[in-house]
Amino acid sequence: MVYVTRRATFSSSHILFNPELSDEENLALFDKCANKMGHGHNYVVEVTVAGEPNVRTGYVIDLKKLKTIIKQEVLDKVDHKHLNFEVEFLRGVIPTAENIARGIWRVLEPKIREGKLYSVRLHETENNIVEYRGERS
Amino acid sequence: MVYVTRRATFSSSHILFNPELSDEENLALFDKCANKMGHGHNYVVEVTVAGEPNVRTGYVIDLKKLKTIIKQEVLDKVDHKHLNFEVEFLRGVIPTAENIARGIWRVLEPKIREGKLYSVRLHETENNIVEYRGERS
Amino acid sequence: MVYVTRRATFSSSHILFNPELSDEENLALFDKCANKMGHGHNYVVEVTVAGEPNVRTGYVIDLKKLKTIIKQEVLDKVDHKHLNFEVEFLRGVIPTAENIARGIWRVLEPKIREGKLYSVRLHETENNIVEYRGERS
Amino acid sequence: MVYVTRRATFSSSHILFNPELSDEENLALFDKCANKMGHGHNYVVEVTVAGEPNVRTGYVIDLKKLKTIIKQEVLDKVDHKHLNFEVEFLRGVIPTAENIARGIWRVLEPKIREGKLYSVRLHETENNIVEYRGERS
Amino acid sequence: MVYVTRRATFSSSHILFNPELSDEENLALFDKCANKMGHGHNYVVEVTVAGEPNVRTGYVIDLKKLKTIIKQEVLDKVDHKHLNFEVEFLRGVIPTAENIARGIWRVLEPKIREGKLYSVRLHETENNIVEYRGERS
Amino acid sequence: MVYVTRRATFSSSHILFNPELSDEENLALFDKCANKMGHGHNYVVEVTVAGEPNVRTGYVIDLKKLKTIIKQEVLDKVDHKHLNFEVEFLRGVIPTAENIARGIWRVLEPKIREGKLYSVRLHETENNIVEYRGERS
Repeated sequence: MVYVTRRATFSSSHILFNPELSDEENLALFDKCANKMGHGHNYVVEVTVAGEPNVRTGYVIDLKKLKTIIKQEVLDKVDHKHLNFEVEFLRGVIPTAENIARGIWRVLEPKIREGKLYSVRLHETENNIVEYRGERS
Repeated sequence: MVYVTRRATFSSSHILFNPELSDEENLALFDKCANKMGHGHNYVVEVTVAGEPNVRTGYVIDLKKLKTIIKQEVLDKVDHKHLNFEVEFLRGVIPTAENIARGIWRVLEPKIREGKLYSVRLHETENNIVEYRGERS
Repeated sequence: MVYVTRRATFSSSHILFNPELSDEENLALFDKCANKMGHGHNYVVEVTVAGEPNVRTGYVIDLKKLKTIIKQEVLDKVDHKHLNFEVEFLRGVIPTAENIARGIWRVLEPKIREGKLYSVRLHETENNIVEYRGERS
Repeated sequence: MVYVTRRATFSSSHILFNPELSDEENLALFDKCANKMGHGHNYVVEVTVAGEPNVRTGYVIDLKKLKTIIKQEVLDKVDHKHLNFEVEFLRGVIPTAENIARGIWRVLEPKIREGKLYSVRLHETENNIVEYRGERS
Repeated sequence: MVYVTRRATFSSSHILFNPELSDEENLALFDKCANKMGHGHNYVVEVTVAGEPNVRTGYVIDLKKLKTIIKQEVLDKVDHKHLNFEVEFLRGVIPTAENIARGIWRVLEPKIREGKLYSVRLHETENNIVEYRGERS
Repeated sequence: MVYVTRRATFSSSHILFNPELSDEENLALFDKCANKMGHGHNYVVEVTVAGEPNVRTGYVIDLKKLKTIIKQEVLDKVDHKHLNFEVEFLRGVIPTAENIARGIWRVLEPKIREGKLYSVRLHETENNIVEYRGERS
């Protein structure tokens, strides 16, 4: 079994706030991330698929195909968008890095037909990174 | 003469549009960057000061001081902010990387008292970078 | 379950030698790293916590809190210090990257109260990296 | 147990084609990678060994030794070479990143005598990465 | 005046040899780079254009346009190609990084109509970088 | 004229203090960098040579030769050393990044016989960088 990873980037705005809480509670929880004007990031996403390389091609999955899937299912929906208001697969959740990674997993998982989705790793800044592997605790 | 550079980062939202133009003209000029919901970036700024090292300290300028100046004059004003609506030193300009770099130059230049500000280099993404050196063409 | 990682850096000196061995044996084992004058590194530490995101916040653990824990328990004790002589949690061990990573695990593990510490990854140089996950072989 | 990683780089040429298929089939599968003139990459390989640190040295494996093993078994055979025609351990396979990583595993695994080889991670470009951990699916 | 830079990458093969010299002389000059089977690199090119930002757009040059020019004039001609045999703008020169950078300058310079081409910087590996600014010594 | 750059790294210890000042003055000037136990860094040095490429080789200077010069004149003298006490070319100066860069210039400049030394750029950390170009202010 081999793990193959494709890296991509997108630039988006978000606000961290929980609409069920007061402004004071949101500020206490999310500090400057709760600024209602929004702020943004250059996100880096690393999508890993695990499987046995195909004998005919030597590929687990053609990374050009994986690149296209990531573009259609993720980048076209989030790049240069506001993650709180414009992204169907994030509707109803606070767009923390954790929830964005799980959202990306949910849209990608059914589209991977060679190998299996193994991990979605998301860098929000150079110091803050999250990873989701489809596990339940 | 030695050039000393301090690197810092901030995360902000912006929209590229010229309020004197129509929506169609803005879309033609700025494409997805004109999305009125805004989008954002992790900006990386590199501030370079040129001067002769002080014999007593071996420093052109103490980088801890330069770090503090960058924090007070730049980061505290732009980090986790919307560059179109919340930043005094960007009022009235389209917040392209070019204009942000020039704005940062204007606020930093009078605060550098050891050596002279030589360059403000701003990375908007890993592929798009601008630099301003205070020159007029 | 989601894995969240916070990255931080510190700059320290160390010497690799085993006080129970002769100088010749230390030189044979550790080569130029055994230089008694010491040498140093910019260490990069990546601390990963695993857990279920909190429904109220969308966070496994607030990375601002994790940043503070890393600062108080690790950085304040090792940054701009000599790892052989000034660090309580490294007393009695040779400060190889392996032992530093295990020491950082031991001081961080009891302080993580949201999620569980999953991994401490330490880059000593851009080519030498170690990771400890609390496992016994 | 601690995981120690040594990073190294090499620059090689390759062509992706399956000699049992027609030119049209190869072009359909491999696109521009099937160009018979060849193209090349700066490969980055990260070799991870897992084990218990030795009490006498604090090392899982001396990374200077691991560096030498990687040089002798891998770099000397692939650096500045054409992977389709000049590398014994890749004979008879299409030199995709997946197959190169598995080939590197096969030549390194018997040479690691302190700790055990845990992973071979290979970056073909900054966006395409594969990892092999010796697993069978 | 502001300097704007667009970064792009391509992967190519090359051989360093001077056809007017003997094999022995080529080996003495170029060592393993003279291997006739070829080897390759992931090249990183940074193209810098200098000019006054347009008041209407805030851009020196729209980086989307610069990206397209780089793709059409450079990447489409060199990516996944053999630089010795398949690239018109490198015909008759040894494809050292120096000569590739000058070749890229020559094809790009007449295509830049907003601002002026200031620099072509080319990374052949992470340790070897060249820059050409159109200067004659 | 083309600028060619070779990048190299070394790991050293240093202390920032001026022996003509009191401990209190040193602490006020250099803060935690004045710790007498020393601390250290992974320095990255980028050496740039400018010149006209040789028609016979396409090289300004063979980067393998430049690599050897940097190893002999710089790395062998500073790597895994204490910069305050063990480096001839830093004797009598406070080993700030500014002074290390000027020291490296002085030892390299007479050794470059193809092209001319143009710049020594030294990264002390990922955020602190200095550059010396042999200029007098």
